[in-house]
Amino acid sequence: MRRNSERRAALLDAAIEVLAREGARGLTYRAVDTEAGVPAGTSSNYFPNRDELLHQIAVKIHERLMPSDASLAESLALPRDKALVERFMHDIVARADADRSSYLALLELRLEATRRPELRAALTRTISDNIEFNVAFHTEAGLPGDRTTVELLYLAMSSLIVERLTLPGVLSTVDQDALIKAMVERF
Amino acid sequence: MRRNSERRAALLDAAIEVLAREGARGLTYRAVDTEAGVPAGTSSNYFPNRDELLHQIAVKIHERLMPSDASLAESLALPRDKALVERFMHDIVARADADRSSYLALLELRLEATRRPELRAALTRTISDNIEFNVAFHTEAGLPGDRTTVELLYLAMSSLIVERLTLPGVLSTVDQDALIKAMVERF
Repeated sequence: MRRNSERRAALLDAAIEVLAREGARGLTYRAVDTEAGVPAGTSSNYFPNRDELLHQIAVKIHERLMPSDASLAESLALPRDKALVERFMHDIVARADADRSSYLALLELRLEATRRPELRAALTRTISDNIEFNVAFHTEAGLPGDRTTVELLYLAMSSLIVERLTLPGVLSTVDQDALIKAMVERF
Repeated sequence: MRRNSERRAALLDAAIEVLAREGARGLTYRAVDTEAGVPAGTSSNYFPNRDELLHQIAVKIHERLMPSDASLAESLALPRDKALVERFMHDIVARADADRSSYLALLELRLEATRRPELRAALTRTISDNIEFNVAFHTEAGLPGDRTTVELLYLAMSSLIVERLTLPGVLSTVDQDALIKAMVERF
């Protein structure tokens, strides 16, 4: 079988679905092959061990959750004010709602990282890089606020999304638009 | 075998350890019995089905993470200012660090709730009640800030703790005391 990047990407997409649906213990090479509709043994050809598979899933999740270049360009044509920061926060929520599996799989990876030191190290780098990327983006775009603003937004938005995806009823009585507005105002 | 509340509490403590260590799929009646050092079949006598066991674990976790009456009384003797809110936030972090298993088990329950509607309903009530309790406490104690302050603190602190417990390296370069101070100042 020839290795190719499309097949590899399709296997990672399948692995994200399995991880979100079945949890870390349900993530087997066989389950990934079945989900991707490929012959048994395919995914083990691409990912030599479980740590490598888990780490590549984390990288793929971050790719999937990135805004598109077109959406970024459209936003950056607007005034660099609090309203734009709010818009970015709403975009993050919309992307999470549209790709629940990625966020749920990322939570599963976090929990699995408490059990696997290699995954913990890899995931720490991936997530730290992502935060640094956001801080740099915020600063270079001249958006209002400082590094602490970005860190606090990262923390509050992460929880908001986890809450929406796992227990949507908890926030059902809260005006989430107003909450995001308050976050941007106060941070 | 006589049912009694001490035995029941010990089984739930054991279940929290199993859930934190092995994940939702590893949580079997047999694993709980083994962890608690009781004869096989004991936990199934106390918890007739899995939904009931999972829900009782959630209630137990919230009990374990509550501040003690003594600690609350000591804090409430202090001036009701931002420094006191900060102190409460540090207490929350200290309790999470001292009881990692409860927080990790709660994350496992959240993920399991995406797969089990009954658990989702029960957990939504438990967590909503907890937030309402915090809002009422904050308001009645005359602490600075409003309902939105408490909601934002809840969101940001939840993420901070998840990050500390699952990927401590991500926040290793951040001054967490300064971050908590900024949270309280800005929210």
